[in-house]
Amino acid sequence: MPKHAYSLPTILKNRRVKLESLISNPVILWSGKAISRNFPANKYPFRPSSHFLYFAGLPLENAVIRLFKGILELFFDDPPTKASLWHGELPTRKEVASLIGADEAYPLKELNSKTQEAATIAVQDPVTYQQQCQLLQRTIQPSNQLTGIDLDLATAIVQLRLQQDQAAIAELRKSIAVSVTAHQAGMKATATAKTEAEIRGAMEGVIMAHDMTCAYNSIVTVQGEVLHNEQYHNALKSGDLLLADVGAENALGWAADITRTWPVSGKFSSTQRAIYDLVLAAHDNCIAQMQPGVEYREIHLLAARIIAEGLVDLGILRGNPTDLVDRDAHALFFPHGIGHLLGLDVHDMEDLGDLAGYETGRTRSDRFGLGYLRLDRTLRSGMVVTIEPGFYQVRGILHNHDLRSKYDDVVNWERLTQFADVRGIRIEDDVLITDSGTEVLTADLPTAAADIEDLVMDQK
Amino acid sequence: MPKHAYSLPTILKNRRVKLESLISNPVILWSGKAISRNFPANKYPFRPSSHFLYFAGLPLENAVIRLFKGILELFFDDPPTKASLWHGELPTRKEVASLIGADEAYPLKELNSKTQEAATIAVQDPVTYQQQCQLLQRTIQPSNQLTGIDLDLATAIVQLRLQQDQAAIAELRKSIAVSVTAHQAGMKATATAKTEAEIRGAMEGVIMAHDMTCAYNSIVTVQGEVLHNEQYHNALKSGDLLLADVGAENALGWAADITRTWPVSGKFSSTQRAIYDLVLAAHDNCIAQMQPGVEYREIHLLAARIIAEGLVDLGILRGNPTDLVDRDAHALFFPHGIGHLLGLDVHDMEDLGDLAGYETGRTRSDRFGLGYLRLDRTLRSGMVVTIEPGFYQVRGILHNHDLRSKYDDVVNWERLTQFADVRGIRIEDDVLITDSGTEVLTADLPTAAADIEDLVMDQK
Repeated sequence: MPKHAYSLPTILKNRRVKLESLISNPVILWSGKAISRNFPANKYPFRPSSHFLYFAGLPLENAVIRLFKGILELFFDDPPTKASLWHGELPTRKEVASLIGADEAYPLKELNSKTQEAATIAVQDPVTYQQQCQLLQRTIQPSNQLTGIDLDLATAIVQLRLQQDQAAIAELRKSIAVSVTAHQAGMKATATAKTEAEIRGAMEGVIMAHDMTCAYNSIVTVQGEVLHNEQYHNALKSGDLLLADVGAENALGWAADITRTWPVSGKFSSTQRAIYDLVLAAHDNCIAQMQPGVEYREIHLLAARIIAEGLVDLGILRGNPTDLVDRDAHALFFPHGIGHLLGLDVHDMEDLGDLAGYETGRTRSDRFGLGYLRLDRTLRSGMVVTIEPGFYQVRGILHNHDLRSKYDDVVNWERLTQFADVRGIRIEDDVLITDSGTEVLTADLPTAAADIEDLVMDQK
Repeated sequence: MPKHAYSLPTILKNRRVKLESLISNPVILWSGKAISRNFPANKYPFRPSSHFLYFAGLPLENAVIRLFKGILELFFDDPPTKASLWHGELPTRKEVASLIGADEAYPLKELNSKTQEAATIAVQDPVTYQQQCQLLQRTIQPSNQLTGIDLDLATAIVQLRLQQDQAAIAELRKSIAVSVTAHQAGMKATATAKTEAEIRGAMEGVIMAHDMTCAYNSIVTVQGEVLHNEQYHNALKSGDLLLADVGAENALGWAADITRTWPVSGKFSSTQRAIYDLVLAAHDNCIAQMQPGVEYREIHLLAARIIAEGLVDLGILRGNPTDLVDRDAHALFFPHGIGHLLGLDVHDMEDLGDLAGYETGRTRSDRFGLGYLRLDRTLRSGMVVTIEPGFYQVRGILHNHDLRSKYDDVVNWERLTQFADVRGIRIEDDVLITDSGTEVLTADLPTAAADIEDLVMDQK
């Protein structure tokens, strides 16, 4: 079991007390079970439901907690005797109950009689999901289509998890520290690496060496314009930019999410440097403007405006930056949102659809330049969000006939060809909103072009 | 798409022709879909069904093939236009059909009208499994409880996949070569590593750097007696043995499976060396005896006898080695089987229960010393199997009251205490049965104690 610098039962108790003030039904949360890969005994590494983790603290497989009237009940089976042959000494129900401060602990089968009126949230694992429905004797909606008491529960959980407590922030710092080391290792490995895969191996090797896992499938690519590229076979060429979006998740499930973009050669070309500095200006200005009370959507639009302005200065776009953003012209090159919530999930609580990301009464825009914004809330102290502006030459956008026609008057296509060596750049940091402004939790990893060059060149 | 040194359509055609000679019903095989981890968009890395891979060759997600009367039909949807924004250019149905030599290719929805009388095998992913049942309009049994035409299909597939063709062996060699490099890296990393996790990071980093994945969750532990230990937090101490069971899986899904055990200090103690040499003697003698016509069960019993004999020589066991094996006394220290089939799955075709592992008419023994044997067949040319004898001091066995009483007359418990620094040793190689005997596919990685010490000490 992982060790803590603080008292896990106390933290969990605080979270439960807050939850109970927001919901009157009993709450039952399942951790889920490991899922088989190619045959039953060959499983994917188990990852518990984040809602379970938030209130139960430990990554227990096939465990259930019930919260009602201030009482935490744990439902968890003692490991079978035979398990010790294959898996060694496993924690007993009693030990787990003590670690998490459960008031009562029962075998799983006891749960059958305690499910009345209970609210829950569907887990991702389909086998456990079926058990949830059977035990509660009702169809539980998928977690992004909740209704009734389950929606009440999810709304209450969002209210808690939106603003991270000190224990959560302490855990996030651990994942972030290891992720920073991983990015440094990736930059250093560039001197000798021949492929994207080698950079990825160097980066994820560091995460594994710290006994952590990846919070999401890494993006490590010279085709940064492919936004969710999960292939790693490309060779590295001297003029390439390498975009690495890699984040660790620690033993208790807390995620980091960091992107850096660096030149394979150790030196940005003048065109790469111009765009890099523009993306960095958007990044820095967004962070400078963030504080409690500020609308995250405005931060997104600020990034859009800075990028539009910079692209006008570089002769790639034409017109007034504000008008360009109103017309979504920035989204030709910056088609995603400025960031998202970060916590136990890398897109925190995205299993609930937009319930966490969007303030009550707000919904996704259908605008080209706003539709991919994952967070539209007023910033509050304790929120942890990413800030990740970017510039990309996405084939699917820039060679789309309709988009080309629509924006033909504002894009200097000929000038753009001079920036062919800038396929994709993103700079992403993790930012804690504090009472007075922000703390960049990822500040140990430089963003300035010259510093990035130094880190890559160090090993040359 | 991965590249091939041979013609994929030809290989797949050969496999199909063989299958068609064994089964008269149409055969439909699903690849499956990626499974969500903590929220819908955050998926585990996709792994297709091995049966699909064997006949379709490429790791396609959400694809189906239908084999009937010599015709291969592919059911696969073209990527949606929007996908190019996030995932770049994805292969079209037509391109995939050409790569795998499909005779016809249709959108997935066309499958509805082609499911009559079809045999299939359930995939592991529960969502696709439900679709299989819906489309075939019947309950498909889990793959280890097959009946009727599905059992006929599985039996036919086993007949093919038991003896690997040249293309399969070529792919296995690739995964094995990278796994050998990973083990060498693990040994080298021992000089500076402080934890199991660091050794694991060094080993899996190599696998990732070659753009491969792990065929199974790595075991990298100083508690080698915990047979399926998947924790990596222990510190390395000078007197420890490190047991690493790590194998790569290449882009087309072929698995390697290698275990080495080495001293953290770079030097075996005399007790560790004595047991290591005994396990190695079992390993070497087993491989020397293997050839077509030999019973794998006899190889297991040979290992048991050698280990029993060696433990008698060391004063740990008392009695006649053959009698000790008849009484399962060897299983106190070597409680698992000598190995298993290897192919697209690390325990090849284990999704089918014992259908692949056990010759028709044979079933698992309930004997303590035979019950964990995963393979009980006559060896044939083209089979690839592991040979992995071991010695372990498993708490759950050696401190089990019933077992201690049962074997009290044959164990010298006091002598055993002198071997306290030998917690777990396993030496595992991958062996191809050839017409004339065997080829050890993992031969590039030394097994001799002195060579292992050199590999670890090299970096000291």
